[in-house]
Amino acid sequence: MLNFDYYNPTHIVFGKDRLSELDALVPKGIKVLILYGGGSVKKFKTLEKVIQSLPNREIFEFGGIEPNPKFTTLLKAVDLVKKEKVDFLLAVGGGSVMDGTKFISLASHYDGEVKDLLTHGFQPVPIKTALPIGTVVTLPATGSEMNSGAVISHNGGKFPVFSPLAFPKFSILDPTLTYTLPAIQVANGVIDTFIHTVEQYVTYPEEGRFQDRTAEGILRTLIEVGKKTIDNPTDYNARANLVWCATNALNGLIGAGVPQDWTTHMIGHELTAMFGIDHGQTLAILQPSIWTVRKDQKWKKLLQYAQRVWDITEGDEESRIDEAIEKTRNFFQELGVNTQLTSYGVTHDKIDEVVNALERHGLTALSETGDLTLDISRQILEDAMSNK
Amino acid sequence: MLNFDYYNPTHIVFGKDRLSELDALVPKGIKVLILYGGGSVKKFKTLEKVIQSLPNREIFEFGGIEPNPKFTTLLKAVDLVKKEKVDFLLAVGGGSVMDGTKFISLASHYDGEVKDLLTHGFQPVPIKTALPIGTVVTLPATGSEMNSGAVISHNGGKFPVFSPLAFPKFSILDPTLTYTLPAIQVANGVIDTFIHTVEQYVTYPEEGRFQDRTAEGILRTLIEVGKKTIDNPTDYNARANLVWCATNALNGLIGAGVPQDWTTHMIGHELTAMFGIDHGQTLAILQPSIWTVRKDQKWKKLLQYAQRVWDITEGDEESRIDEAIEKTRNFFQELGVNTQLTSYGVTHDKIDEVVNALERHGLTALSETGDLTLDISRQILEDAMSNK
Repeated sequence: MLNFDYYNPTHIVFGKDRLSELDALVPKGIKVLILYGGGSVKKFKTLEKVIQSLPNREIFEFGGIEPNPKFTTLLKAVDLVKKEKVDFLLAVGGGSVMDGTKFISLASHYDGEVKDLLTHGFQPVPIKTALPIGTVVTLPATGSEMNSGAVISHNGGKFPVFSPLAFPKFSILDPTLTYTLPAIQVANGVIDTFIHTVEQYVTYPEEGRFQDRTAEGILRTLIEVGKKTIDNPTDYNARANLVWCATNALNGLIGAGVPQDWTTHMIGHELTAMFGIDHGQTLAILQPSIWTVRKDQKWKKLLQYAQRVWDITEGDEESRIDEAIEKTRNFFQELGVNTQLTSYGVTHDKIDEVVNALERHGLTALSETGDLTLDISRQILEDAMSNK
Repeated sequence: MLNFDYYNPTHIVFGKDRLSELDALVPKGIKVLILYGGGSVKKFKTLEKVIQSLPNREIFEFGGIEPNPKFTTLLKAVDLVKKEKVDFLLAVGGGSVMDGTKFISLASHYDGEVKDLLTHGFQPVPIKTALPIGTVVTLPATGSEMNSGAVISHNGGKFPVFSPLAFPKFSILDPTLTYTLPAIQVANGVIDTFIHTVEQYVTYPEEGRFQDRTAEGILRTLIEVGKKTIDNPTDYNARANLVWCATNALNGLIGAGVPQDWTTHMIGHELTAMFGIDHGQTLAILQPSIWTVRKDQKWKKLLQYAQRVWDITEGDEESRIDEAIEKTRNFFQELGVNTQLTSYGVTHDKIDEVVNALERHGLTALSETGDLTLDISRQILEDAMSNK
């Protein structure tokens, strides 16, 4: 097992009918800015309930945080925070709203040029204080409700922003608030959670037995409840299990002390930026192809994955691995997500452009071992074009 | 899944050669009281290394915190803290030292009669501030390094004490610091971790799929590494997996949103108090008998346990459950721990005394459903006398 630090101070408030506890969670007599995305939090009255739960505070609103939240949009919220001297940020939405809110929290307390906050990658941004944040989660997927990271879009690029100050003080996870989500968003959330898990699990053996078993538990749970919660959105237990898995897939727990990959996310971000393909869809397209191309490097963990997640124990090693890759792709397709790049209108001649973008963004040595070159990224994209 | 709150702000510092990071973790220029148990932290130079890692602080020491830490011993440390105006408590040891340190932290800031802190059971003690704590863990077992509870002994009783202020600020978990432990203490630690896990898992189905899989992962890991880490104490990965499982078995993670039992611990505490049997040994004695007597109530989860933890899939349901109980008992015995109460010199006529003690302490409605009466406790003790 590798040495690690694990720290996660977010207070999770999980379950039915917890919104009214906002009154106890948010300090009284302060200025609260509520941040959200499109109109669905208004349409389904979540915003109204949130505001009702916060009497005796001065409430401001900032809507319109888009999927893949834009730096330029968030700057407007920073201006509002500074102008009104806001004390607390409450994100009501999914990963984009939470990520955007984290950035606003950091940027509001940053004295330098705000754009510099996009340049620190996976290192903490140089900042000593930030505005406190709470979240009300309406989309289970990114795990942003219980981690200290955000991904911000600017000028066609996606930039990670990290700070231990960005952990939400609390996150309310009421699975019933997610019942109204469109099926495709739930499917994307299942896939995002699945890929977060395998990026920290299908690498090379490092004797993280607890971590492996916990990752396998998340994957098996997603396989059990994924289609069920899309087909029956108001099945409370199915949805609750998805929501809690989504949080635990990216709160630091399963990645502590083991290697991590993140190739799928890195290449996926380029596909989203260039072709507008949903984040979850890019992951479903790429992951099986990455495993096909990187079979040798991930052999032992792919075998373990085949056995422990899919109960595949018959046949020679390679056929077991191939079967596991095939079952993974089928799982994504059964959730209603296409796994061929061509299905999204991307033609073969675009591969050069994607590879050039990876090079431009310095993503030339990806994977848990840093040996995934641009040539290998090209092979992956070729495999992903028209796999079955 | 049941509604739940999950909050755990302890910073875990895990791995080899982390002791020197104490200098960055403990504020400089303050008064630090280092607390420990017997002489082993001196004998094996852990204490010396800790002190070397804390230059520029005024260091005080308080040794002699006994297993099952006594209220009267801890009061002496509280006096020292108040007299010297200590700023920070650093526990160096196992669960007893950590639990004792938590109590000292709370008691040092409590204005009322300190003994009252023992009377709040599993409710938080009424206190607004406490002295900050750090820990250096030398015995993997109780999970105290990452939770907010303590068990304090007084006048033949064991009293739980809880407060969110009792979470350690940090805990250093260096598996190599545990290499010198006697085999029996490691065995007790494996069993304590195993029972912490099943007390939150073998109850009734409540659709906590992530929680169940994570619990099963801990149990399977303990079965894989338990004997190995006793026989080969310097096998780093085996010991590291035990240490990390011990923490995760009782940090709130696997118990969030599911029923919990704790019968084994409650009856076990009486056996420790009355006969001086090690805590881990009491659990090994009682758990298989509790399952034998409570088979009907725990039927579904025992079947799940048989299948997912022991891979038992053949035979009728009852024979699978019986086989799982038998394998559990054998596992404890293979670790070198006797599972018959008679092996510890306890004779059949003592059962009345144990039952009377349970009654005196109000433990008359135990278990996840509150229907485990004194009569049932008697049946459990009778079964535990001389099982094979």
